[in-house]
Amino acid sequence: MKFKVLGAGSATPVVGRYPSAFALNHENETFLIDCGEGTQWRMLEFGVKHHKINHIFISHLHGDHFLGLVGLISSMNSLGRKQKLTVYAPPGLKEIITIQFKYQETRLEFDLVLIEIISEEKSPLFESATIVVSSFPLVHRISTFGFLFEEKIKPRNFKKDKLSEEISLANIHQLKQGKDVLDENGKIKYTSEEYTFSTDLPKTFAYCSDTAYSESILPFIQNADLLYHESTFLQDKIRRAEETFHSTATQAASIAFKSNVKHLVLGHFSARYKEIEPFFAEASGIFPNLTLAIGGTEIDL
Amino acid sequence: MKFKVLGAGSATPVVGRYPSAFALNHENETFLIDCGEGTQWRMLEFGVKHHKINHIFISHLHGDHFLGLVGLISSMNSLGRKQKLTVYAPPGLKEIITIQFKYQETRLEFDLVLIEIISEEKSPLFESATIVVSSFPLVHRISTFGFLFEEKIKPRNFKKDKLSEEISLANIHQLKQGKDVLDENGKIKYTSEEYTFSTDLPKTFAYCSDTAYSESILPFIQNADLLYHESTFLQDKIRRAEETFHSTATQAASIAFKSNVKHLVLGHFSARYKEIEPFFAEASGIFPNLTLAIGGTEIDL
Repeated sequence: MKFKVLGAGSATPVVGRYPSAFALNHENETFLIDCGEGTQWRMLEFGVKHHKINHIFISHLHGDHFLGLVGLISSMNSLGRKQKLTVYAPPGLKEIITIQFKYQETRLEFDLVLIEIISEEKSPLFESATIVVSSFPLVHRISTFGFLFEEKIKPRNFKKDKLSEEISLANIHQLKQGKDVLDENGKIKYTSEEYTFSTDLPKTFAYCSDTAYSESILPFIQNADLLYHESTFLQDKIRRAEETFHSTATQAASIAFKSNVKHLVLGHFSARYKEIEPFFAEASGIFPNLTLAIGGTEIDL
Repeated sequence: MKFKVLGAGSATPVVGRYPSAFALNHENETFLIDCGEGTQWRMLEFGVKHHKINHIFISHLHGDHFLGLVGLISSMNSLGRKQKLTVYAPPGLKEIITIQFKYQETRLEFDLVLIEIISEEKSPLFESATIVVSSFPLVHRISTFGFLFEEKIKPRNFKKDKLSEEISLANIHQLKQGKDVLDENGKIKYTSEEYTFSTDLPKTFAYCSDTAYSESILPFIQNADLLYHESTFLQDKIRRAEETFHSTATQAASIAFKSNVKHLVLGHFSARYKEIEPFFAEASGIFPNLTLAIGGTEIDL
């Protein structure tokens, strides 16, 4: 998987910082996560293709997380899209989109499926042969969800020097799944260990924006390879963070430490901070494997 | 007046071209005309201040003309605005904004007044001591309006060398309005012509986006000092222009010529044109006093 930042500012505009939007490439597909105002232009700038996006995940209905959606869907339509698009979001988005398309007199030439996220448990939203995407509740002023992208165990590779006429395709398939092949008498004939080797381990990406500090999210994000966590404020504004149900850099780093993730990306920096380096200084003492999200940042998992 | 282009692209995004948004400075106020996605960032980039904006004019409810509005109003609110804001738009905008603020749980701390434009005649929307703003119908796929900004006759300047103890402040005020002062017997005591001199003539700006070629708009924009007219296509795509109720560069220049305006600005260029210079080449043969709108373009009237 590859995680790409399109924008990681907060609601109030700052020159050169754009609101939340992230692309997660997995195999030949791009998952779009949040879609703040102007996301279409960031996609052009950072080379994210419309036609690779089939699933969009909206964390909540604050404008800086979804105001780019109607424009993006309209452009997909006018550029000739035919393939289905599924958008996952808290209740309300359907009403918001429907009313705008009514007045625009837009008739979509593709299926737009809107899935409402309501569960207060970890809840699978989408599953393919290679990945499961789930939502889980965050703690914010309005109903807000995090997303967990969990790759499935990848098939092992068959060792070419072990190929022979004896071994059937069915045997090979079974061995690649990690299962040993037995003979008619139930005795082991080929072991997966001997005939195959492991490829990449499956990776997990967890997305948490926006949220107050809450240890309630720890079970959902435990051991993730990459965690994006909002960090709207520095620790000197912890009161403001609490009032607005946002997190500080210290709090985000604590969550990363306590959940034992491998790598933390911070974003959603308040417009009050002209420079973002102090977020690194504050958080890296607690959690050193840290990246600050700015437009164009890419992280391979 | 000063006209400033924040964005003059059309709906499909192009790197470096942004959707319709224009600022018209008049005295100490800024009128915002259309508010496409990302207008907040263009305002920052081109130095347009929130607090100078009290009136926003939305030509129609296609996304590339208003999708920046909810974000802008939200930011005004979170930045502490208290002063009233009036938005003029075709019916529907109120419903669109209301539903989004409902789900965002936004409570505005200032008065937001939404005025519906419905008249199919030239119709005054706003009047101050120094300017009248009117709407007039354009010809597009959905209900769309042009706007006319007409300065009122400006007070004349009093000649300093004519100041004396005899002349009262009331006399001076009257002379500056262009009226002569009479004595008790009704005879002329001071003439405005002798005691004052003229400042700038009142100027008129006409805004036409989006519209098919239509001579029905000529009476509304006649003799304007500056005309912004959309020019989505070049003349080789006149069929496409007709189908989509847009104009070509040739058509926009013809409208400028026939309405006897002094200066024409073209914009709303389709994303299919990677370069916009051909719009100049095509239109300037018909109407030479021509500017192509790109972000940052400023024209003094």
